[in-house]
Amino acid sequence: MSADPFKPAQRVAGARADVWTIVNEAAAASPVQPIINMGQGFFGYNPPPFVIEAAKGCLDRVECNQYSPTKGRPRLKKAIADSYAPFYNHELDGEKNVTITTGANEGMLSAFMGFLEPGDEAIIFEPFFDQYTSNIEMPGGKVVYVPMIPPSRGATEKTSASEWKIDMEKFKAAITPKTRMIVLNSPHNPIGKIFSRDELEEIGEVCVKHNLIILSDEVYDKLYYTPEKFVRIANLSEEMWKRTLVVGSGGKIFYATGWRVGWLIGPEHLIKYVAGAHTRICYSSVSPLQEATAIGLEEAEKYNFYEESRKEMKAKMDRFNEVWDELGLPYSDPDGGYFVLVNLAKVKLPEDYDYPSYVSSRPRDFQLMWFLIMEIGVAAIPPTEFFTLENEHLVKDWLRFAVCKNDDVLETAKERLRKLKQYIV
Amino acid sequence: MSADPFKPAQRVAGARADVWTIVNEAAAASPVQPIINMGQGFFGYNPPPFVIEAAKGCLDRVECNQYSPTKGRPRLKKAIADSYAPFYNHELDGEKNVTITTGANEGMLSAFMGFLEPGDEAIIFEPFFDQYTSNIEMPGGKVVYVPMIPPSRGATEKTSASEWKIDMEKFKAAITPKTRMIVLNSPHNPIGKIFSRDELEEIGEVCVKHNLIILSDEVYDKLYYTPEKFVRIANLSEEMWKRTLVVGSGGKIFYATGWRVGWLIGPEHLIKYVAGAHTRICYSSVSPLQEATAIGLEEAEKYNFYEESRKEMKAKMDRFNEVWDELGLPYSDPDGGYFVLVNLAKVKLPEDYDYPSYVSSRPRDFQLMWFLIMEIGVAAIPPTEFFTLENEHLVKDWLRFAVCKNDDVLETAKERLRKLKQYIV
Ligand SMILES: Cc1ncc(COP(=O)(O)O)c(C=O)c1O
Ligand SMILES: Cc1ncc(COP(=O)(O)O)c(C=O)c1O
Repeated sequence: MSADPFKPAQRVAGARADVWTIVNEAAAASPVQPIINMGQGFFGYNPPPFVIEAAKGCLDRVECNQYSPTKGRPRLKKAIADSYAPFYNHELDGEKNVTITTGANEGMLSAFMGFLEPGDEAIIFEPFFDQYTSNIEMPGGKVVYVPMIPPSRGATEKTSASEWKIDMEKFKAAITPKTRMIVLNSPHNPIGKIFSRDELEEIGEVCVKHNLIILSDEVYDKLYYTPEKFVRIANLSEEMWKRTLVVGSGGKIFYATGWRVGWLIGPEHLIKYVAGAHTRICYSSVSPLQEATAIGLEEAEKYNFYEESRKEMKAKMDRFNEVWDELGLPYSDPDGGYFVLVNLAKVKLPEDYDYPSYVSSRPRDFQLMWFLIMEIGVAAIPPTEFFTLENEHLVKDWLRFAVCKNDDVLETAKERLRKLKQYIV
Repeated sequence: MSADPFKPAQRVAGARADVWTIVNEAAAASPVQPIINMGQGFFGYNPPPFVIEAAKGCLDRVECNQYSPTKGRPRLKKAIADSYAPFYNHELDGEKNVTITTGANEGMLSAFMGFLEPGDEAIIFEPFFDQYTSNIEMPGGKVVYVPMIPPSRGATEKTSASEWKIDMEKFKAAITPKTRMIVLNSPHNPIGKIFSRDELEEIGEVCVKHNLIILSDEVYDKLYYTPEKFVRIANLSEEMWKRTLVVGSGGKIFYATGWRVGWLIGPEHLIKYVAGAHTRICYSSVSPLQEATAIGLEEAEKYNFYEESRKEMKAKMDRFNEVWDELGLPYSDPDGGYFVLVNLAKVKLPEDYDYPSYVSSRPRDFQLMWFLIMEIGVAAIPPTEFFTLENEHLVKDWLRFAVCKNDDVLETAKERLRKLKQYIV
């Protein structure tokens, strides 16, 4: 008999309020209403009509409303293999190299559940997408952190996301006999960095040497703003292909984060265990929206959707960032994705400003976040949440803004942010 | 460095082909095409029009296509609390007593992840819904099995599902200091049993004595064919309420198993950790179909949907089971749900019949399944899959049929099954 019969398992017992809850509660409590929410990375507009129409059509089909095969609908697996084939040096067979998951998120959990035994280590780079840590801990894995270092000029001048660099010495030093996986993210959330071929080769070499599995989170792969195409680590060599699981997200591609359709692409000897874990987690994923995502992938080129989508997001990014140029606040210009990190070291917060204790006890970016929500009416995310305590000082003056919003919303946000002028010293 | 860098974690390494794959592959290979598939419990028809229309409407709403709150859409939590309030002796607050999951399945996993530490034990009763075992094992829990005993006359005469009984002595003996949870399922898959108030009280008493959490899987709660209403264990007393997590499924209620909208209802001190686990597993669940399920629940009574649905399913059950009466094959008449167990001891399989090794090596119900698919053209599930090796002999002559199919399909199935006559001795 347990002393406290309702005691939660340690893996869920963590008490610290997460950043999403804090930001949403602050947004709801702000005197400025409605708030402009540039915090979480959801889209402020609908998926394209050809995808919405596809989904409605699927709802009329009996088999699209019932359980799908646990590894995903064959049509979707084929659509992913076909639409990604031109970007891979390796042949893709939907039945062997693709498995469908409930969003990229549950896909990553499935990968960790598929390969980590309790006590096994997985390396992630700071800043990290916050779900990585809990996803690694769910199977009893141990998260090992390695920082990425921002350009030192980042507080005084506009820099490029590409200037953030993995501390390679720390990376190599972090590997132990228990290390089994590393997680890469390119295009990167929250930095907007796209890893260069040289960087990926250097990372890849270490992974080959130590025989590690690479989980490559490429959910923003359609959104790159660099002249060269986005480089995929799985393409670097056969050695890389055979140890890499690539994570994709229909929600991110088609502006439908609430659809929860994701996938992993990789060699059969890895994919089959991811699929095995997924079956034990969700059994199967949402059928009508899997089918609609398949149709979306089949038809995307016909509508020139990827190129339009990339151009449109880059235009939003540039449109929004004008306000930082105006204000003279430096930001890290992203090479991909829809997040921008802005440095607000120059913003002088009133000294006697009243923060709740769960904000005043956190680094300065939490206070910046709170102040912007309450006084300016724009919500953004404090990126220290994506760092360990040891390294959070690296970004205590930064905030992350999501630009995947309608242009008029971006303009209103800019209008509001101009009020920051009076606080800039 | 790992000896085999791609070695899967033990929790997913199991190699035995699962019954769903075997049945589906046999169905595809059968000379009788198209096969009538009464194996898996998916519906052969669409959700009701008011639910489909609701879903289409949600696809036009921007916020319904984006991330929902991790614990679920407020409208759905409220709709569940409101529509279940009349069936509970306890007040239900959507924000405190309900959390949304990706199908009932991921809801159960979230419950185990929320409360089981590695080595903790959870008791399940045989036969069991097969996902319970992997869901318990994912967080490192240990499954402890207790058999339910079929009526001994079951091989010779028609019996009632209510005659299956938990072996209470074995149940009590199975409890150890490590036991933390038990899983109940009523209405029961595959038996179709509805636990009586007396039975639930006896089980509940044991749980109070040993301070156990009860996971009550009630996904078939709308489908009961007994004169009394279905009894919920959470309602028996305040002691029961505070230790019970009730599992529900929008997919089962609204004929949409592919929508993956499920939930748990329970006291706040349990629900919050289920929600915490769910957030770390799927992050959030499918938005447009959560909203559509909310609308479905809000409007169901207006269409008298639950009563119609219950009557309709009972009529299907009776229609289908006529064929067993005709053939003189005994079955266990269900009190709820949409599965029926039929005893085929009297069916004499040809002695020299050729089975693949993964069928001949399993108990007789696998051979019955194979023979029916190949010779008769009807697929059913061998229920020994839902037992441990020790107890599988209890059901080696039975098969499970799902009757949630169109009436013409049921008639064709009966027509085909009449061919069994020649094999009955
Ligand atoms: C880097 C990264 N990976 C994965 C995800 C999750 O994607 P999904 O919504 O498909 O689960 C996100 C969402 O914000 C993300 O930023
Ligand atoms: C007893 C039982 N519980 C749970 C489930 C899973 O329900 P869902 O489809 O909502 O995950 C099933 C599905 O067959 C079931 O039979």
